[in-house]
This record gives sequence, C-alpha cells and structure tokens, in this order.
Amino acid sequence: MLSKNIETFLGCDAEYADATTVLFGAPFDSTTSYRPGTRFGSRAMRQESYGLETWSPYQKQDLTDRAIFDSGDLELPFGAPEVALQLIRERTAKILADGKRPFLLGGEHLVTLGAVEAVLEQYPDLHIIHFDAHADLRDEYLGITLSHASVIRRCWDLMGNGRIAQFGIRSGDQAEFQWGENHIHTQLFNFTGLAHILDTIGERPVYFTIDLDVLDPSCFPGTGTPEAGGVTFPELLDAIFLVLGQANVVACDLVELAPPLDPTGVSTATACKILREMLIAME
Amino acid sequence: MLSKNIETFLGCDAEYADATTVLFGAPFDSTTSYRPGTRFGSRAMRQESYGLETWSPYQKQDLTDRAIFDSGDLELPFGAPEVALQLIRERTAKILADGKRPFLLGGEHLVTLGAVEAVLEQYPDLHIIHFDAHADLRDEYLGITLSHASVIRRCWDLMGNGRIAQFGIRSGDQAEFQWGENHIHTQLFNFTGLAHILDTIGERPVYFTIDLDVLDPSCFPGTGTPEAGGVTFPELLDAIFLVLGQANVVACDLVELAPPLDPTGVSTATACKILREMLIAME
Amino acid sequence: MLSKNIETFLGCDAEYADATTVLFGAPFDSTTSYRPGTRFGSRAMRQESYGLETWSPYQKQDLTDRAIFDSGDLELPFGAPEVALQLIRERTAKILADGKRPFLLGGEHLVTLGAVEAVLEQYPDLHIIHFDAHADLRDEYLGITLSHASVIRRCWDLMGNGRIAQFGIRSGDQAEFQWGENHIHTQLFNFTGLAHILDTIGERPVYFTIDLDVLDPSCFPGTGTPEAGGVTFPELLDAIFLVLGQANVVACDLVELAPPLDPTGVSTATACKILREMLIAME
Amino acid sequence: MLSKNIETFLGCDAEYADATTVLFGAPFDSTTSYRPGTRFGSRAMRQESYGLETWSPYQKQDLTDRAIFDSGDLELPFGAPEVALQLIRERTAKILADGKRPFLLGGEHLVTLGAVEAVLEQYPDLHIIHFDAHADLRDEYLGITLSHASVIRRCWDLMGNGRIAQFGIRSGDQAEFQWGENHIHTQLFNFTGLAHILDTIGERPVYFTIDLDVLDPSCFPGTGTPEAGGVTFPELLDAIFLVLGQANVVACDLVELAPPLDPTGVSTATACKILREMLIAME
Amino acid sequence: MLSKNIETFLGCDAEYADATTVLFGAPFDSTTSYRPGTRFGSRAMRQESYGLETWSPYQKQDLTDRAIFDSGDLELPFGAPEVALQLIRERTAKILADGKRPFLLGGEHLVTLGAVEAVLEQYPDLHIIHFDAHADLRDEYLGITLSHASVIRRCWDLMGNGRIAQFGIRSGDQAEFQWGENHIHTQLFNFTGLAHILDTIGERPVYFTIDLDVLDPSCFPGTGTPEAGGVTFPELLDAIFLVLGQANVVACDLVELAPPLDPTGVSTATACKILREMLIAME
Amino acid sequence: MLSKNIETFLGCDAEYADATTVLFGAPFDSTTSYRPGTRFGSRAMRQESYGLETWSPYQKQDLTDRAIFDSGDLELPFGAPEVALQLIRERTAKILADGKRPFLLGGEHLVTLGAVEAVLEQYPDLHIIHFDAHADLRDEYLGITLSHASVIRRCWDLMGNGRIAQFGIRSGDQAEFQWGENHIHTQLFNFTGLAHILDTIGERPVYFTIDLDVLDPSCFPGTGTPEAGGVTFPELLDAIFLVLGQANVVACDLVELAPPLDPTGVSTATACKILREMLIAME
Repeated sequence: MLSKNIETFLGCDAEYADATTVLFGAPFDSTTSYRPGTRFGSRAMRQESYGLETWSPYQKQDLTDRAIFDSGDLELPFGAPEVALQLIRERTAKILADGKRPFLLGGEHLVTLGAVEAVLEQYPDLHIIHFDAHADLRDEYLGITLSHASVIRRCWDLMGNGRIAQFGIRSGDQAEFQWGENHIHTQLFNFTGLAHILDTIGERPVYFTIDLDVLDPSCFPGTGTPEAGGVTFPELLDAIFLVLGQANVVACDLVELAPPLDPTGVSTATACKILREMLIAME
Repeated sequence: MLSKNIETFLGCDAEYADATTVLFGAPFDSTTSYRPGTRFGSRAMRQESYGLETWSPYQKQDLTDRAIFDSGDLELPFGAPEVALQLIRERTAKILADGKRPFLLGGEHLVTLGAVEAVLEQYPDLHIIHFDAHADLRDEYLGITLSHASVIRRCWDLMGNGRIAQFGIRSGDQAEFQWGENHIHTQLFNFTGLAHILDTIGERPVYFTIDLDVLDPSCFPGTGTPEAGGVTFPELLDAIFLVLGQANVVACDLVELAPPLDPTGVSTATACKILREMLIAME
Repeated sequence: MLSKNIETFLGCDAEYADATTVLFGAPFDSTTSYRPGTRFGSRAMRQESYGLETWSPYQKQDLTDRAIFDSGDLELPFGAPEVALQLIRERTAKILADGKRPFLLGGEHLVTLGAVEAVLEQYPDLHIIHFDAHADLRDEYLGITLSHASVIRRCWDLMGNGRIAQFGIRSGDQAEFQWGENHIHTQLFNFTGLAHILDTIGERPVYFTIDLDVLDPSCFPGTGTPEAGGVTFPELLDAIFLVLGQANVVACDLVELAPPLDPTGVSTATACKILREMLIAME
Repeated sequence: MLSKNIETFLGCDAEYADATTVLFGAPFDSTTSYRPGTRFGSRAMRQESYGLETWSPYQKQDLTDRAIFDSGDLELPFGAPEVALQLIRERTAKILADGKRPFLLGGEHLVTLGAVEAVLEQYPDLHIIHFDAHADLRDEYLGITLSHASVIRRCWDLMGNGRIAQFGIRSGDQAEFQWGENHIHTQLFNFTGLAHILDTIGERPVYFTIDLDVLDPSCFPGTGTPEAGGVTFPELLDAIFLVLGQANVVACDLVELAPPLDPTGVSTATACKILREMLIAME
Repeated sequence: MLSKNIETFLGCDAEYADATTVLFGAPFDSTTSYRPGTRFGSRAMRQESYGLETWSPYQKQDLTDRAIFDSGDLELPFGAPEVALQLIRERTAKILADGKRPFLLGGEHLVTLGAVEAVLEQYPDLHIIHFDAHADLRDEYLGITLSHASVIRRCWDLMGNGRIAQFGIRSGDQAEFQWGENHIHTQLFNFTGLAHILDTIGERPVYFTIDLDVLDPSCFPGTGTPEAGGVTFPELLDAIFLVLGQANVVACDLVELAPPLDPTGVSTATACKILREMLIAME
Repeated sequence: MLSKNIETFLGCDAEYADATTVLFGAPFDSTTSYRPGTRFGSRAMRQESYGLETWSPYQKQDLTDRAIFDSGDLELPFGAPEVALQLIRERTAKILADGKRPFLLGGEHLVTLGAVEAVLEQYPDLHIIHFDAHADLRDEYLGITLSHASVIRRCWDLMGNGRIAQFGIRSGDQAEFQWGENHIHTQLFNFTGLAHILDTIGERPVYFTIDLDVLDPSCFPGTGTPEAGGVTFPELLDAIFLVLGQANVVACDLVELAPPLDPTGVSTATACKILREMLIAME
C-alpha cells in the first residue's frame, strides 16, 4: 500500500515517543504592523529544507543522528491573538509534559509569549536569551498590549527584573531603551558580553528566542522590518553555539522569517541552515 | 513659503467643507486567512492614481468636476479587530453627521462591518448591494466571529432577512450557501437579476460594497484569494453604472486590493480606474 | 501523542484502501526546453489548496464526499528521463492493479508517457483526449526522442492511428501539423468537435491529459511556454465536464503548472480549482 | 572556425540585400512619465523569440519563408529625445532608400515620430493607422512637446487633418478628445469602423503603429500605463490581418512593451507572436 | 473637520518657517543609461519610512528633536534634463534664500547638478564631498553632456580643480580616471583619507552628495548599476558621521535609490535609515 | 549596408583567428536537483555586460586590450546529459586544437565534466583548482552518476588522487567528505592554503573551475542552492588573482549563475565583473 504524504523539516522524522525535541509551527502574523508574511515561515522552511544537507561541516555531525519530531503547524485564527497564544501555550505544555524540548517556529515574534508562558509554568526560574534587531519592549501601541513589538515586555511582566538578556538590538523608540536600562540587559548591535551573561545564568533553565532579523538584511532580507547594520551569519552561528553549548536551554524558537519578502529564497535557506545547526548543537 | 506634501487620490482635492463625498482608507488585514497584503491597498491607490487621467471616456465627464475630499488612512491597530472596527465606525459616523457620503477604501472586507454599523444608525432601512467572489457568510471560523469570511453574515445579524443581495459569488462552503438561501439573495457567477433587485429596493438607502475579487483574476490578480471564473472589467463597470445610476447609494466601499500580490501593478491601476468611475457616476 | 505532519491536496484524505482515485506527483522538468519550473507544480498545488473551498458551486457537490488518496510526490532523478518514466510507470501500474484510478500531477508533459504506458498495459484499447496549446508531436529534437515536445508522438508510437484527439492546439512546427493530419485528430484553438469525438469513443477507456497551457496566458501565466490566444477558464471547465461526464476516463493527468513563473499565485490557485472540479466530476 | 554570436528575432536571418523588411530596435524611454522599462522591449523580444515556433497556425504559413533582416538596436542617448529621433529618422530613411520596408520595435511611443518623419519624406500622402489605449494627442506637458503622450499630435503637425485614424483608445484628457474630434478619427475602445477607414484610404501608403497597450492588461500587463478595458488578443490579431491584408503598409512599428513590468514573461511572448503574425501577413 | 492627507518622511513635520533643513524630491531618471527606476526613490522613502523608528541608537538622539520640513517632490518633465535642472535650481535657491539647508532626494545623480549650481551662487568657495561607486567624470556620452555619468564633471566645469573629493569609487572608464588624476581627488574602493580631506577643507562650505550605490550591492541592491566590492553600511555610517561632524555642510543629497529593482524593500529601508542618521547628525 | 546584430560579452570582439581566449556558453541545467535556472546564465551575462565598464580599477588594465572571441552558446538538448557533455567536449577540443584557451560559461556545474575531458586529452597531467560551496563528490544520486552533485567525483574518476584541490566548501553529505579526505584536497569555508597548493602544482597545467555559489548568498543570491557562510567578493577576487597570476591555467569555467533567481540583477552583474577580471588577469 502507498503511504501518505508526510512533510517534515529535513531529517526530523523520529517517532514522537522517541523524540527529545519537538518542532511545531505557529503560522501567525496578525499583529505585524509593517509588512506581514511570517505566517508562511514554518511551512517554507519545511518545504525548502530538502535543498539542504543533513551533515554540518561546522559541527562535523549529522542531523539524522538526532531524535526530532516535527508535529507540523498549529491551526491558528488570524485576528485573535489571545486565542492563538492559548493554542501555542497548550502545545508547548503538552510537549514539556511529555518530557521533550519544544522548538517553536514562527510566525511573528508575539508567538514567543505563548511558549514562554507554558515553559514558565514548569520552570519558574527561567531566563530568556533574546537575539533580535528590535527591543520589543513597547508597553502598548494604539492601546494594544499584545503585539510583536511588545512581546519581550510581556515576558518581563511575567518574569520581572534581571532575567532577560537581549543582543544585537539596533531599533526601538527612546522610551523602550530607557525602560530597558532598569529592567533587562540590552546589548546593542552585537553579541558582546554574551559569554558573561551565560556564566551568570549558570545551570538555570533558559528559553532561547531568535528573531532572525538580528541578521543583517544583506544575508536575511526576508523579514517584515529589515534593519541595516546587523550581525553576520558566522557571528550568529558562533553566538548560537555559545548559548547551546553552555546554557541549559529547555525550549527555544526561531521567528520572523517572511518568505514572500525574499523572492531569491536565500532567507529561507539561511533559516533552514540555522535550524539544522541548532538542532544538532542542542544535544 | 513652500507647502506641505499632500497626497490624495487623483483629483480628490476639494476642501472638506465643500465635499459631497469623503474618501478614507482602512489599512487593516489582520483577519485575512490566506495571503495578507490588503493593508497596502488604499495607499497604493493614492500613489498610483497619478498614472490615471481624470477624464472618463465611458461617462464623458471629468473627476475634477466632482467635489471629493480624501482624508487619508485611519491609523488602525493590527491584531485588534474590535478596535479597528470602532475607529472605522467613528470616522463613518462623523462623515455622515457632516452630511457627506463616506467612501471607504480597504483593507480586507471585514472593514465593511464598521462602516455598515455607522450607516445603519442613520439609515435603519438600509439595504446592501454586495459584489464579491466569496459569499462571506460563515458564522465563525475556529470560534472567531469577526473575520473577512464572516463580514456579510455579521451585517445580516444587524439587518435581518431580505436586505442583502450579493452578485458574482463563486466560492463558499456548503453551509454558507444553504444558510444564504433562506436569508439573503445570492446570484452566482454574474450580475443576472441586478436590475430587478434594484427595482425592488427603489428609493431606500443602499450601502454598496465591492470586493474587487469579484473580477476575474486575469484582470485582477492582486488579491488575497483569487478565484478563477470571475466577471470581466466591462461587466463590472456596467453593473456599477446600473447600481449608481438607479439606487440611492448613501455609502460605499472598495476592498481587498492587495498590491504586493501583483508585481505588474495592473490590479492597482484597475482599482484606481474603478474608483474614478464610481466617484464620477455617484453624482 | 502528537501526529505527524501530513500534507495532501485539499480534502484528499481518504485511506488508500478506500480510495477510488489516487493522486501522485511527478516533479520532473528536465526536458523542458524553454523555461523550467514545473517540477514545483504538484507541491505548490498541495500547499496552496488550503486557500480553496471543498464545495463546488458549479457542480453543487463537495470534494469531501469523494474518496481520494494523495500519495505525495515520486522522487525522480533529474537529467534521466528514462528512469523517471520507469518510476512513473511503476506507480501508475500499482494504482491500477489495486483497482483505483491514477491521477498524475506534473511536472512537464513528458511524464504523461510513463502513465500512458502503464495504462495501456491494462487497457489495450485506450484512447487519449489531449487538451494543450502545443501539438507535442515532434519526432525528435537535436536527436532526442524523449521530451515534452514529443510526448504525444511517443504515445502514438504505442497506440497507432485514430486513437488520439487533441484540442485547443495553437503552436507547433509545420512538420508536426502535417504529420498530425494523417495520424491523429487535431482541433486548433478551441474545443469544437469534442462531443462528437466522445461519441465515437463511446465506452472505450480514455486517458485524459490536460496541459494547463491550453488556457489563455491571461488566466494562466504560470507555465513554461505561454501561448496567447488560448481558451478561457469557463470554456475549459465546460470541456472537462463534457469529457468526465461522458467518457470512461480510467486515468488522467494535469501538467505544466510552473509556479515560480507566476508570482501572483493565480496560476496555482486556478490549477487547484480545476483539480477540485475534476475530482468531483470524475465520480 | 567558430562563428560570432548573432542574435536576431526568430527566423529573421535573411541577408540585408535580399530582405524585403528590415527590423530595428529603438531602446528609448526617456520621456515615459509613469513607469519606464520599454527600453528593454526590442532586446527581450529577440531573446525570448526562441520560445516561439516559426509556423503560424492562423495563417498556415511559416516565418522562415519571408525574407527579413534584423539589424539590431540603435544606440540612442537617454535624456536627449531630439538626438534619438534623428538617429531613428536616419535609420528609417536608409532602409527606405534601399527599397525595403522598415519595421521599428520600441521603446516608448515617441520613437514613432522619427520613423514617420522619414517615411513622410518618401511618401508625402502617407496615412497613419494607430492602435493604442491612449490618444497621445497632448500638445505639451510641463512645456515639453516631445513625449510619448504627444507623439500622434506631433505626427499631425506634419500631416494635417484627415490622415490619422486611431482605434482602441480608452484614455486621454478632455482636451485631447475635444481636439481630436476636429482633426483625426478616433474610435473608442475597439476596432469598429476599421474596414471602412481602410476603404477610404485605398491604395495610399500607410504607416501602421501599434502601441501594445491597446491590448487588455489581462493579456498584456507588461507596459508602462496599463488601461483596463482593452481589446483581446484575437480581436487585435483580426484587426492586424485586416490592415495588413488590405492597406498598402509601407512601414510599421510595435511599441511600449516593457518587459521588467511583467515578471511572468507573458507580455514579451505575446509581443513576439504578434510580430511573427505581422511579418508573415505583411507579404 | 477632517484634515488632508499629508505625507512626509518620518517625523519631518516642522512648519516651514521653523525648519532648519528642508527636504525635497527630484523624481527624475531620464538620462539613466542602464536600468531606470530612481524616479520612484523619494516617494518610496516617504512611504516606507513609517517602518522606521525616529530614535537613533547610534547617536542616542531622536529625529523628532530636529526641525525639518519635507516639501514633497518637484514635478519634473521626463526627457528634458535642462528643464528639470532649472526647476531643481530654483527650489534649492529658494530654500537657501530662506536661510535653510536644502536636502535633495533623487532621482538619478544628474539632479545634483541643479542643486550644486544654486548652492555655488550663494557659496562661491564651495567644496564637494562625493561618495559613489562611479566616478561620474565622463565628458560626454554619444555627444550628450548632461547625464548621470557626467554629473561630477559638470560640477567641475563650474568649480575647477582641487575642490571635489570622491570616495568609494570602483567603476569608470580609463579616460575618466586619467582625467580625474589631475583635477579632483579620487579614493578608490573606500574612505581612506577622508579625515585628511576634511581637515584641508576646514570651515569652507561643503556640498555633500551620496550616491547610494557606494554601498555594496549585498546591502543595497536597489540601484541602477550595482557594483560588487562596495563599502558596508557601518563603514558608510562612520564616514557620514565624520563628514557631518566635521565639515560645514550647507546642502546635501542622497541619490540613486531605485526601489523597483529591489523587491525585498531592503534598499529603501536602508536609505531611510541613512537619511534619518544624516538628518539627526546634521545639527 | 546594415550589419547583423552580434551579441558578445562586453568587449570580447576579437576575430577568432586573433583570439587567445575563446568564450562559449553551455546553457544546460537538466540535472539540477533543487532550483533550475542556470541555463540562462551565459545569455544573461552577455546581455547585462553592457552595464559594466571595460576598465578594471583593480588591475588598472582594460579588457579591450585583450584578444577574446565569444562564440555564443552551444545548442544543447535538455534531458540528455551525455549528449550535452559530448557537444561541450567537441567545442572545447576544437578551441584547444586551434591553440586557444577555452573559457566555458555555465549552465550548471556538470558542464565542467565535458570541458575537463577534452582538456585532459591534451594535458594528461592536468590539475583542477575548484572553488565552490558544494563538494560535488557524490558517487551517484538515485542511481544516476552524471549530475551537478557528482561532477568533481567524475573528474576524479578520470584523474585519480592528488590532482584536485577545492576551496570554500561548506556543504556536502558525510560520505562525500569522508571519501574526499583520501582522494582530493578540501579546504572548508575559505581559501586558506591556496598559495601552498599552487606552489606544489608549479608549472603543470591547471583547469580552473569556479562555481559562483562559493560567494556568500548576500552578494550572490542568484544560484540554485545558496549556502550561507560563503566568501566575500574581495576574497574571491584575491583568490582568483592568486590562481591566475601563479598557475598555468589552460582552461577555465564560471558556472551556476541562475539569473531568474535574483530579480535584483546583482548576481548577474557580479558574475560579469568576475569574468571581466578573470579575462584581464589571464594574460
């Protein structure tokens, strides 16, 4: 008998029961204020990953030696952020409850909030390592408090001071940066100080969120709000290896790939390679 | 002294006090379930309208002989449909209160609901003439009741049976069509019966909503959910002239242009021409 | 436990054992001489079909009431047409052997040859109904006999005179048309005479192959060699209903969608709708 | 020895001495007021013509049976319309002096003026048949008298009343149409009356200029100022056959293809097919 | 009463009387010899600037603390460079006469000439600092002396030796470089020596012209003639801060953004950020 | 008399008899497994090269001082790699036999094999210097041994151990790298060790093959399988100057430019510049 058409990210074909890490997509971009399109991110990564090798010449290891399950995309209602976040929360909690590490693929950055909420339930002493071009610390926008521009501020609401460290930041309004100075750790433009932050976190659990627009638009144009002056691909890779090699990462995400905005396909291919390296490095 | 840079739709430069019709844009597409991009519709129409002449060879009249004011786009929060609808309602009510005809440019089709609510306040015996490829009669989707796929159903909630007539419809699920049979008038594929419906409405006030995807995708590819088998541009123009020539249209809208989805620019140019013809025909 | 990510064409989620029709894709375009890209056709149709309703307002029936299994894409080696055709032949034969109707999604038109060979094994009295802009009757090109421009000629090699009828043809070289006059039935530009041909075929088994470039490029630009002067979508739909309503179609295919060549996505959406209508009409 | 790389339009490879018709390109679009790009028109047609067959199923004749020479593109200075027109004039005059028919490929419509000037020298009783969406009758624009929007008015300056007939027109300002009523023949929207005009012209020499935007944007989006409501490809073909079959066409042009504006390539392919049909029909 | 739709570059909404710097656009690209599109540059920057924050994390200052007026785009006739330059000259002179600093947004590089002519009237001892990939020192091209490839040569005609310094140059013909050696200062590839040149200029007035193609095409593909091997965004930013921090810049421009050539939008976003930094740094 | 339209790469217009280097294109991409499009590479380079200067500011020399003949593109049958390779072999042999250096423009990387076979005939002690992102050392794929992913492995079949050195490699499967360790020299990521390898080769003849995807996708997105983490343009240029300045390069190629995958045109422009620098440096 013929088998059904199963589509997973490259080589992530473990059985759920055996998997240590579980991928899931959150195709949601309703609060994106500038150019939408991240709703297509997780799908495009699955579809385009067949252009990638499973072998990492960086780590000299193979993705097929990892046990990863790709559960596909959630079905999320556009225009209803609370409902979307609730569904993300539930999926994350389910994966954690089964003793596996959740790996969320965006979608816009707001989706991180749902995952963080669920992880916090299980790991009250959670820290967040945040790579991004944007501070995402706005308290509200036109009276709205749930948006991609506020997501880290909302995480802080749940976690309080001294538990969030962000790197690569190069955009935000004055109020965000002023607020940030007293509540979180912000490193502008690059990854300076990352090793030190990781030292101070030590063995405590970490949620690792990467907004791909931390990359320079020259190598990652496919994102809603590209910001010139970003980090290079090798710089990002090194920083990722540092975090995954040193921190106790209990959950993570990769967000803000907007495939329709890059007709060359390079952004999606680059996101796929970053995901491959993360999945290999994580264990 | 130099003057500020004012950008209006082609020739719509009357003073507000003198205007009989007032344009405003609702750049909102948060509930779009397939391909977003209509948020850029009203802006693109203003910007690209300078490629169009003000003279209509169809009506042998000139747009500059009409008194139209273009108040630009509302600032709407993405991801918060209720707030967006409230702001549209307020703007519509203000224009009506000043004795002028509101003309809303989308954005996605949900924005119609805000305008209809305001118009109903002033014209309780309102009828709706609806041109569209999609029935938009869904009761809910994933539990969400405010979305572009439900907008006409929500209007019906406010108006009841026998007051909505839709034309050109060629997509919907079975439940929508079954429900529709008992509550509204649905003409599949074309404009057959339009004159008769207009006769029965007579002098009663009409809200005229045009989802541009009623056009065949060959002449209007720039929309979120293109549906093969639509009406031609001349057929649409004739139907518009019929409605505007015969009915008492107190407010109208033109929605679902998604400029990024048509890199040729033809969809935007066509939308501009339709708007020109409507604005000339309306008075 | 979470389930794997299964991706099928809209609503084609029957179990294989229950299915009467089985879809499979042949992502191959190695012999395309002008603009490649059809290798992405079947995948794009699966992915984009979620923008389509399962209900047909044309037939007033629902796709979910059909029992269809989508077995995904074959893995085909580029640059090796004989191997690709062999794999297509095997898949087609397997489906026929299990008493089901194969439905092949291209890929370029050459893939039809593999399917026809397998169907001929089971149905020696097979006829072919062929919709296309191109005659595809070339004997060879630069010495090569297996190519998309020769596919119908190769079918004739297997079947002989009087068993192939083609419609909508508007491109070919002089030699093709001259040869065709004595060996097959060619209707230029449109579907005139289709009903008569179907009458003469009667109950004999039919392979129905549709090269989507039979459509006018205005409604279907996403194909390798667009030819102005094609049929409209409603004309094609009517012809399809005629064939499927009258002939004993034992296998069919839909080929030559090249998604990267149409950035508006309209071609893929149109191909999806045609497939929906065919799948509903077939039973 | 290897030969140089010669690139001509499909099958137009006669020796100059033998040719009856001579193609040349005028890659100029400096006066285009909206979206430039026609400078790439003639090149794209040569390059893409290899996707086309030389056989016409419409005329049942083959382009290779015609003696046509393609002399490539003129080198024209951008920003200097007078110089460009002078170079076009010289090339046209040279071809006429050699007893051959010039066929100019645009570029923008202004280039027609250079050719018409040269043809008028040899044929003082010249008439113009003009297919276009735009009247092109503006006297000046911002004080400038040489532009694509004025080209037919400039021709009239040279020829006077009653010698220009235009068809398919659907855009212009009020002043153009009013002026036109008294000086030329304008048929709005379609080709009604074309046969009659050709009768009245009789054997007198005709310059035939086709602005490809006369076609509906659905089948020809690749042009600077697309105008909804145009003629179909079969309608244009019929009108072309009428003109070339009946009139004494001593020179002609095909202008306003802007390949970068149509990423599907359909516009270029359609222009190539129209050129093939014209070249075959001309003799 | 509702207000008109005013569109300015991000945060540049001072009253003219209060403004110290005045922006204006010159949407002109008629002499562009390769790929046109810069005519859309200034508009696109206004429209896309809403995706940018007003706060500069580089300078720790906010654009809204500057007094800048954006007077929109000039209306320039295509195909008539002399007329366009005259209009640019007049606008520049008007702004200077009112005691404000003109900031010109291109358009192609030729527009600089109009501005320089006006500034020279008021500041006879003017120097030019020129960032570009191209030398722009051609004396003529096909006999034409007014073109984007000659603009700096034309400035030299007015200013003479030793007053123009160009940086980042990596394209030109041999004659240009040879001529340049004796008349201006040319730094190939980078900004080496910039500080020294600024020292020698001292307090004398400077016109600062930036052709954005000085950037590497990896971060700025949206320009007519991209040249591999350019400077990075941080390098350009540093050089800009050096010029604006040290020199007496009395007027400046930013030219050669061609938005249609970069479908990712990154080039426009980058140009916006450079403009923000320049406007903040200038005072 | 007018001359035919000859199209060559910029300034490569020597007579064949006088030429020391002969360009030819191999427009073939039938075995490309991911995204096709390199078939358009050589044509696009010729067409777009007119946007480039002949003068090299890097080498301070002019391309027009070299004697290069461009013989255009081979006509190759798609879907038949053996035939295509045979035609490439014959062309290469002919050029070598005439005492000239062949320079092949791809097309996909498989075309290199045809050229290497011919060069090996004449130079049995040939070495290969290979710049690439991909190892191309696969033994077979789905049973197929002739493909772009196997091309260097096929060269090794002919040449044996110790004669192939590759640089910039950052993608391959585990088996390829393991095999490579014992048979060829592989430098990951960059050009480290290139000078040393050139020293060991000394005066022996070298075939120099550059797969342009060795460049980082930020500066070269237009290729079938972009791989983040590549070399920069200046790094590649330096490595090319090293090879061409030191080695006895008897033939070379430049492959894998896929113009349709980069709508900005930057990739083609960059390939043109690399070719210019190579042609100047080669003599």
